[in-house]
Amino acid sequence: MWKVQPTEFLKRTLNPIRILWETNQPKGNPEIPNIYLQLGDPTIYGNFLPHSNCAKAISYAVLHDKFSYLESSGLKEAREAVAEYCKHMGNVTADDVFLTTGCSMAIETACRALANPGENILTPEISWNYTTWMNGVGIEARGYSLLPEKEWEIDLDHLESLIDDKTRAIVVNSPGNPCGNVHSKKHILEIIALAERNKLVIISDEIYEFFTMPNVEYHSFAELSENVPVLVCSGLTKRFLIPGARCDWLVVNDRGNKLENLRTGFRNAAGRNFFPNSSLQYALPSILRDTPQSFFDENNQKIYKNAQIVFNKLKSVKGLKSSIPKGSFYMLIGIDLNKFPKIETSLQFMQMLADEQSVFVLPSECFNYQGFIRIVLTATEEMLAEASDRIKKFCECYYEY
Amino acid sequence: MWKVQPTEFLKRTLNPIRILWETNQPKGNPEIPNIYLQLGDPTIYGNFLPHSNCAKAISYAVLHDKFSYLESSGLKEAREAVAEYCKHMGNVTADDVFLTTGCSMAIETACRALANPGENILTPEISWNYTTWMNGVGIEARGYSLLPEKEWEIDLDHLESLIDDKTRAIVVNSPGNPCGNVHSKKHILEIIALAERNKLVIISDEIYEFFTMPNVEYHSFAELSENVPVLVCSGLTKRFLIPGARCDWLVVNDRGNKLENLRTGFRNAAGRNFFPNSSLQYALPSILRDTPQSFFDENNQKIYKNAQIVFNKLKSVKGLKSSIPKGSFYMLIGIDLNKFPKIETSLQFMQMLADEQSVFVLPSECFNYQGFIRIVLTATEEMLAEASDRIKKFCECYYEY
Repeated sequence: MWKVQPTEFLKRTLNPIRILWETNQPKGNPEIPNIYLQLGDPTIYGNFLPHSNCAKAISYAVLHDKFSYLESSGLKEAREAVAEYCKHMGNVTADDVFLTTGCSMAIETACRALANPGENILTPEISWNYTTWMNGVGIEARGYSLLPEKEWEIDLDHLESLIDDKTRAIVVNSPGNPCGNVHSKKHILEIIALAERNKLVIISDEIYEFFTMPNVEYHSFAELSENVPVLVCSGLTKRFLIPGARCDWLVVNDRGNKLENLRTGFRNAAGRNFFPNSSLQYALPSILRDTPQSFFDENNQKIYKNAQIVFNKLKSVKGLKSSIPKGSFYMLIGIDLNKFPKIETSLQFMQMLADEQSVFVLPSECFNYQGFIRIVLTATEEMLAEASDRIKKFCECYYEY
Repeated sequence: MWKVQPTEFLKRTLNPIRILWETNQPKGNPEIPNIYLQLGDPTIYGNFLPHSNCAKAISYAVLHDKFSYLESSGLKEAREAVAEYCKHMGNVTADDVFLTTGCSMAIETACRALANPGENILTPEISWNYTTWMNGVGIEARGYSLLPEKEWEIDLDHLESLIDDKTRAIVVNSPGNPCGNVHSKKHILEIIALAERNKLVIISDEIYEFFTMPNVEYHSFAELSENVPVLVCSGLTKRFLIPGARCDWLVVNDRGNKLENLRTGFRNAAGRNFFPNSSLQYALPSILRDTPQSFFDENNQKIYKNAQIVFNKLKSVKGLKSSIPKGSFYMLIGIDLNKFPKIETSLQFMQMLADEQSVFVLPSECFNYQGFIRIVLTATEEMLAEASDRIKKFCECYYEY
């Protein structure tokens, strides 16, 4: 009997969020309308729409038949525009920029550029699915602790204790998903010093760059690093509210010139031909230059307002621990499972909440962690208020002294 | 001294065509206008443009803010449309379709789905760069011979002699790049029988599907296979003349149900989030349904006419061996290097031709082969006629009895 067996790549390329979203979704309570607060896609509620210049620029490129092949690293004018957009990081040139099909691909390329199969990369133990691009190629993602009591700062001692002779890089994520952390300048400098001491490259997932709550300062790792190479992964996906565009980038910040031997290799990796849609690349300079600061400011204000709505409703709910995040657009809510004896895990909390109250959230199991749920703060005020009320009702029902 | 060394992935992910195109391009003779006949992008000459409904459909999606995340295998309506479009292969459903960022990604996924590092896949020894996605992950691309004297049929004896216990699949490409081959029904059935005998899956690169010269029949491998699984890689790139759109697909044809254990894995691979631009996915059903057959017929006729122009000019040139291809849009021209004692390789032929006559072609070294040049047949009639005249002049200058 001829049956083909899956490769390690197929077996181990696992994206827990996608798997949950696409296959294990509970149905909800048919008597109450569903409220979906799971997916980090700000565009699905109608209240966070891309700036009008964005669709105009892309449509212009499409209608002018901008469909040709482009240089595999990306159209030069587009890379120049990204370099200009990234000037807050320091001196970035078009040659430092590689356009990628989604920030996911920037992260995948960065990880595979630095670690061979059998080597390891340090990742936040509660984080988005960096493992998806590592496990399938035999790179170990080694989780370092974050400190929830210190606004999800990195536990530097724990991180450093994980380093061995096969460690090649540290993945950092600020503003962070799902924790909503924004690392301070001081903390970033500590992390960079640690990396320098151990000769490790930093892969900085900055896809939520500039998404901060009022009075929270944002710094890019690249901006603050003098000697440690920082591969920044970012793009249009979140900040420009076009997640499906798949036009993001990897920016190689290497003031100490330690990645010189990798330059050709980055071009090789781009030669896989997985480059972003060319109309998007033609539109990119206009999108980056013509989107006004007010667009970003208003979005941040709306997220802050939404965070306050949820926080004010949930802060006194017994058994939950919530706080206003410092950035990104998620609120991570702790569940004191000891106080809910009928609920064993945050996954079960999510399922029961959906089945009974038709509120859909992500359990922290999606982030390889226990005891939290994540809700997105880009839904409408009404949805978030209603969802918070239902979460409260659900908790009151299951809370036991 | 801290210097980071490139990984095997970075070192071995090599795309010879891209490397040549982007870095080693000769300058041309400044006294004669350059004619570029290198790149398999039919859109750059202005005479092969996408059908107008294409830009309309994409622009409509863009202007209606179709930028959300989509299911990682692709929007269901888009996959349904692809399934319908692929009905010539047999019974294809939306669940058999995975949308990919370029046909390149379909091929990469297929190869990595079937072979682990250390295993091998058989590929045509003169072919497009399938090695790009295999070498970097340690899959061996093992080249089987084609028979130029039999219109580039596969040398089945040689192919079968290469199979060992680590062989997992056979890559086939008809209509083929760069050979212009279109395998007959009889030959395809022989290849399928060989695959069945050896329990090997077929990866069929059909990106040039339906590009055939008059009176040449086209068959998909999937259409003719009863028991051998055929992973078809195809898409919008070539036939719809939008190579930069990066909206192509992998279609799993598995009537014998031998890939049952891989189904979850294909979804896992899609979970890498490298999915095509969502506006394109929304536009896909309209593009596939509303592009009239006359559009494809006219393009094929134009390519045939161009092939005749070149062939008629080159057929009597001493030292060259040319013929009208059976399909795709390339002409592969043999060079009898014995007759050009001042020229050692087809690579050198290409460089000298560019330097002296400003005609830019691809040498077969880009396809891991010696002794041929490839020209694209989608340039304008005038360019092709002029280029042929210059090639003739160049050959007359270097030909020696």
